[in-house]
Amino acid sequence: MKVKYNLKHKDVNSMARYGTLETNRGTFETPMFMPVGTKATVKMLSPEELYETKAGIVLSNTYHLWLRPGEDIVEKAGGLHKFMNYNGPMLTDSGGFQVFSLAKPKDITEEGVHFKSHIDGSKLFLTPEKSIEIQNKLDSDIAMSFDECPPFPVTHEYMKNSVDRTLRWAKRGKDVHKNENQSLFGIVQGGEFEDLRKYSALETVKMGFDGYSIGGTSVGEDKETMLKMIEYATPYLPEDKVRYLMGVGEPLDIIDGVIRGIDIFDCVLPTRIARHGNAFSRNGKMNLRNLQYREDFTPIEDNCDCYTCRNYTRAYIRHLIVADEALSGRLLSIHNIRFLIKLTEELREAIKENRILEYREEFINKYEKKPTNE
Amino acid sequence: MKVKYNLKHKDVNSMARYGTLETNRGTFETPMFMPVGTKATVKMLSPEELYETKAGIVLSNTYHLWLRPGEDIVEKAGGLHKFMNYNGPMLTDSGGFQVFSLAKPKDITEEGVHFKSHIDGSKLFLTPEKSIEIQNKLDSDIAMSFDECPPFPVTHEYMKNSVDRTLRWAKRGKDVHKNENQSLFGIVQGGEFEDLRKYSALETVKMGFDGYSIGGTSVGEDKETMLKMIEYATPYLPEDKVRYLMGVGEPLDIIDGVIRGIDIFDCVLPTRIARHGNAFSRNGKMNLRNLQYREDFTPIEDNCDCYTCRNYTRAYIRHLIVADEALSGRLLSIHNIRFLIKLTEELREAIKENRILEYREEFINKYEKKPTNE
Repeated sequence: MKVKYNLKHKDVNSMARYGTLETNRGTFETPMFMPVGTKATVKMLSPEELYETKAGIVLSNTYHLWLRPGEDIVEKAGGLHKFMNYNGPMLTDSGGFQVFSLAKPKDITEEGVHFKSHIDGSKLFLTPEKSIEIQNKLDSDIAMSFDECPPFPVTHEYMKNSVDRTLRWAKRGKDVHKNENQSLFGIVQGGEFEDLRKYSALETVKMGFDGYSIGGTSVGEDKETMLKMIEYATPYLPEDKVRYLMGVGEPLDIIDGVIRGIDIFDCVLPTRIARHGNAFSRNGKMNLRNLQYREDFTPIEDNCDCYTCRNYTRAYIRHLIVADEALSGRLLSIHNIRFLIKLTEELREAIKENRILEYREEFINKYEKKPTNE
Repeated sequence: MKVKYNLKHKDVNSMARYGTLETNRGTFETPMFMPVGTKATVKMLSPEELYETKAGIVLSNTYHLWLRPGEDIVEKAGGLHKFMNYNGPMLTDSGGFQVFSLAKPKDITEEGVHFKSHIDGSKLFLTPEKSIEIQNKLDSDIAMSFDECPPFPVTHEYMKNSVDRTLRWAKRGKDVHKNENQSLFGIVQGGEFEDLRKYSALETVKMGFDGYSIGGTSVGEDKETMLKMIEYATPYLPEDKVRYLMGVGEPLDIIDGVIRGIDIFDCVLPTRIARHGNAFSRNGKMNLRNLQYREDFTPIEDNCDCYTCRNYTRAYIRHLIVADEALSGRLLSIHNIRFLIKLTEELREAIKENRILEYREEFINKYEKKPTNE
């Protein structure tokens, strides 16, 4: 089946929406944070640990799985879910974001993108058709269209050409997408240009996808610009389809995205900062390596219901970090993912009660966006 | 309470024994393999995963915890169990083995050992009293006496002096050991010398410990010599106390140790080879990185009841190894620990049925001791 978004409630003071997304593998509520399992594993975690964070959906990466182990092996394994032993909904990105960070501008042709493997430098060529073919074989529940993700900033002229090419690529991908059990999402590009975001949204929606994503964020722009990129696009997205903001995972950015009508977010942030000893908390990010936690026998957060906070102290986690023990990354990843998902749970409640703007104020008053020690 | 060993059955054709060990935190059957949690964590694994391997007891390390986080912090946390959230029986080694690998011969005095920290090179001094004091604070269920662990080989003269010093150190440690909830084990040394192993065993037993360990193995000797070290000592150890062979974890060595009357084994091998992509199996060690497993969608072992074999294929584990994903080390550690504990379960059954020598033959016929790719 294709995913089905059910809009349950709209906040009366903002664009925020509470809803559910029905998928092949169960229904989850939105807003939702989606943990990233780039190489068919959310780094260090078991599927059981992911279920316990109440993650509704997990992302995996077309580019990385194409290179290793190869989509044919995943297909022979019975698809991505069976390969990695994860039975919840999964989304695969198209590989576009990864490929464009490896390609030079002259390598982008109408046909596709020439670039070099980050593993061994070998020459590779990815096209919209190939990306969809790989995702069909991976058999994720949701595939993403192959898009050009330009850096920030580029000229209006460059972006206009890029948006047009992305639209042609979206069409080509849609034409070859044959997996009836896999949904296909379109991606809105257009950088920081209001007219191009509108144009991209309208033209993408015209093609008719199962959901829509806002891409081209988290490429170096400031936060104000990122929020504009959302605001320029969402008015033109249909209310009955789910909306996914790519690569955004800072707590305040999630809140501000939800207020602007976003339903799903993904980001490597919770697991990446975990491996560097950092934890999310209601009072801002904490660097657990700090000496102040040496004899602190309280959990990361008193009221957190995650496995880590139920069982371990800051002092123990600090010890693991200082002693270079990998369990620290595992315990902090569990906490950080649960933190973001708990945040979306609270956002859902706030939307239902039409008090999301108040929730934002309350959250910000406690939360300090400190630099991490990554 | 002090640990209590109950001898339940002696194999009629060998020295092998089946028994139980009662501890503060429950009773477990022997023979038993003890996973190693050097720095208050069995690398990458949660306590729940350890319970599921049916590990009866876990080892932690006095030297490492003395340096980081320091025994006072562990004590303030409420002891090692509470600090690391592990509620099963725990044994701490004395630090002797680690210290002697860092010290030069001239640094060994009657009072204790001068050596340099492996972390920052700072000068440290460890004595029998200090080792016991640290272990008292760690509050493990079983503490080990601080012994000299000479390299292999040394002269008979050197070893005789060393054994005498170790006996004096054992007495000094015993005299300061005050923790009524912690058992204290003596360690038999004497290298490959029959007379010295006998002498060390008799004199150590005279002092009266709660259990006895055979030390000075796994220091570079060949297997035949290692087995002699056991054979020279066990006849002089009391039947009503548990016997622990330190640092031995090769499956065939465990079997041969059990046949010579050993009850408990510990080794970093199962977790260390796991982090290098290797798995124990009934057919010998497997290097899961090998190309032959690329499309092998069977578990590591068909009949294994571990979490890894119940849920993951060789192809997926190989993918994780090649992609440098830490989950591979976690999954392989679970399998390898369970493999050794399952081995001891089978050894217990074989002892009860007086067929341990036949079991050994059957095991060897399948098992090839291949070099690992560590």
